Amino acid sequence: MAVNLPLIQAEALHPVRGIRIGIAQAGVRKTNRDDLTVMLLPEGASVAGVFTTNRFCAAPVQICQDVLKANRKGVRALVINTGNANAGTGESGMASAKACCERLAEHLGLQATQVLPFSTGVIMEPLPVDRVMAGMPAAIENANSQIGENNWYRAAHAIMTTDTQAKAKSVQITIDDHVVTITGISKGAGMIRPNMATMLGYIATDANIDADVLQTITSDIANQSFNRISVDGDTSTNDSFMVMASNTSAMSRITSMEGTASKAFKAALLEVAQYLAHSIVRDGEGATKFITVTIEGGRTTEECLKAGYAIAHSPLVKTAFFASDPNLGRILAAVGYAGITDLDQNKIDLYLDDVCVAKNGGRNPEYLEADGQRVMKQSEITVRVNLRRGAASDTVWTCDLSHEYVTINADYRS
Amino acid sequence: MAVNLPLIQAEALHPVRGIRIGIAQAGVRKTNRDDLTVMLLPEGASVAGVFTTNRFCAAPVQICQDVLKANRKGVRALVINTGNANAGTGESGMASAKACCERLAEHLGLQATQVLPFSTGVIMEPLPVDRVMAGMPAAIENANSQIGENNWYRAAHAIMTTDTQAKAKSVQITIDDHVVTITGISKGAGMIRPNMATMLGYIATDANIDADVLQTITSDIANQSFNRISVDGDTSTNDSFMVMASNTSAMSRITSMEGTASKAFKAALLEVAQYLAHSIVRDGEGATKFITVTIEGGRTTEECLKAGYAIAHSPLVKTAFFASDPNLGRILAAVGYAGITDLDQNKIDLYLDDVCVAKNGGRNPEYLEADGQRVMKQSEITVRVNLRRGAASDTVWTCDLSHEYVTINADYRS
Repeated sequence: MAVNLPLIQAEALHPVRGIRIGIAQAGVRKTNRDDLTVMLLPEGASVAGVFTTNRFCAAPVQICQDVLKANRKGVRALVINTGNANAGTGESGMASAKACCERLAEHLGLQATQVLPFSTGVIMEPLPVDRVMAGMPAAIENANSQIGENNWYRAAHAIMTTDTQAKAKSVQITIDDHVVTITGISKGAGMIRPNMATMLGYIATDANIDADVLQTITSDIANQSFNRISVDGDTSTNDSFMVMASNTSAMSRITSMEGTASKAFKAALLEVAQYLAHSIVRDGEGATKFITVTIEGGRTTEECLKAGYAIAHSPLVKTAFFASDPNLGRILAAVGYAGITDLDQNKIDLYLDDVCVAKNGGRNPEYLEADGQRVMKQSEITVRVNLRRGAASDTVWTCDLSHEYVTINADYRS
Repeated sequence: MAVNLPLIQAEALHPVRGIRIGIAQAGVRKTNRDDLTVMLLPEGASVAGVFTTNRFCAAPVQICQDVLKANRKGVRALVINTGNANAGTGESGMASAKACCERLAEHLGLQATQVLPFSTGVIMEPLPVDRVMAGMPAAIENANSQIGENNWYRAAHAIMTTDTQAKAKSVQITIDDHVVTITGISKGAGMIRPNMATMLGYIATDANIDADVLQTITSDIANQSFNRISVDGDTSTNDSFMVMASNTSAMSRITSMEGTASKAFKAALLEVAQYLAHSIVRDGEGATKFITVTIEGGRTTEECLKAGYAIAHSPLVKTAFFASDPNLGRILAAVGYAGITDLDQNKIDLYLDDVCVAKNGGRNPEYLEADGQRVMKQSEITVRVNLRRGAASDTVWTCDLSHEYVTINADYRS
């Protein structure tokens, strides 16, 4: 059961002019389920991406990074399979991913370097290339059919692995009197789910925007969304976040980060990206609570993140949230070992929502355990730490650590 | 149930000439249990210590560090209470720790700066100084009684908080034809147990050795024992490891790291320290398996440790061990995000005991799942990763992550 995550509604997901989606059942790992998705982009589409920093990244992630470096403006198709992550597969895995791109390109009359591959599923098992390829014609046909622009709901389900709920969000804003649509989907339930790896996020828009500006905006908003979430602290080999603009809107083209159009677009994109990223945490393995961790008063963003992730990754803090136990020493201890070498422990303030729990590094004399207890019982909790040594701040989102997490990860390998 | 950890035997713990131990029931948190321990050292004893790197360190840890910096050669007594960690207690906590040192010093005719304080237990609650002080006369009387040198067994139990077994080890070696004794005790079951904080280790010897040499040796062996273990990745506010030499042996004094005597002594001290450190992992919260993680072929020790701890801290790896599931992608993924920025994933080899699981970053073609499964079912497992980029290696020890871990940490706050 995801934490406060409404079921997605097909009719709430606006189609994005120019972006066609096709889905097929390729039988990559299981039969009778959607496991192959293609996304087709119009000529001249702008594409931006942010990828896992895991050095052990999967073959498709390497290809995506290479393509976006060399040929950002020529990308015309994405191909996404579930059931197999094509990670830890060495050179043959790379050959498999390339072969899939080549085959899809052939079908579409494109070059292989115009296709971006994505895989999610079991690690260290060979990608069944034949099955993926065999599914392509049906996926392409589906994309080119009448419903090709209206396939977001089905796609949100097709990219799931062990997610308990599909994740999607769509907003519309007005720029230059033109309605601009932003629609996205994501998957992931742990940073790596068992060996079903990966966080994936895809957002499409009909906004008219230069590819370089889109990349800058995408990198920025990733650092306020997908790059700020943690379920178990494990970083997947396959994490990818893509933003694609079909440029089909009649609005004036966005060519820089400045100006109201650019800012409005970025804000709306951030809204969608945050919703999708938070959805992953809400559907985190065994999650019963959604925790926002904000660190204020740091000297740099980096040290705020160190403290934020130390709290978000601590099994002791996470089990305390699960137990609704206002066990505050655990949070302070996590800040203490976060790696901020000259931290003055006697300055730290700690809040649970608006309850001041610790002041100057010690228990707030006015703090009542009942107040902490009341906040800890909520399903949405904000932890706020003020380091009182600077003006930087940052926020990460996480969930608690429950029995269900152990059950899922210990008992599950499909 | 600790993993393969034999119960300690009182008669196997050799007394250390010159070191007297006294225990009392001070009622710090609970009545009718040993919770106050004093250790009395002869004049001229050599004392060395290694402490937590947590910036949020407890008041007694700060005092120990200050004393050892200023007055290493004058230390004559240690006072250890359980039930309260005196951490996160700000300035009043510091005053409380100092008051305890002063009171014990008065009883013993010493200066306060000749006493080292240690506390373990609940964080962020005021130390009940009156109770600690009230227990001192009984503890001192016990230390000065006939059994004062034979109190290791009882002390091993008295320093426990939520440990399920007492931890102790004693060895004797011959140096210069003199039998030298090394006896130690430790406590800790998570790096922080619930909010019962702390790993503590105390080793005493009658060896004759300069304090500076003893400190160098102690720092070295800590890096092969207490500084290389992880239960949940949380670093306690109170971790302390002390080595005390009474210098009462008739052996020639060790005055440098060179020479056979120094090396033999260091090797024996390491044996005791490793046993005590491993005992903490074996008694780790909910542990069902004892895991040795060795990283070879690194460029530096630091990067070997990064990879080793990434594996040891990964909840996904730890739950896979609990499930006896040879889920090898999780281990490779952990190496990948360990923060070795220029790591070549195509060079990594992975072994479970002697089974070669992955070669050149991909699954070893000759690897059989049955072989991995066989190793994973054992209660003692060695994970060996070869990064194949240098000559450095290092080892860390950890345990698995079980349902019991969540139960202990979520349900427990006494």
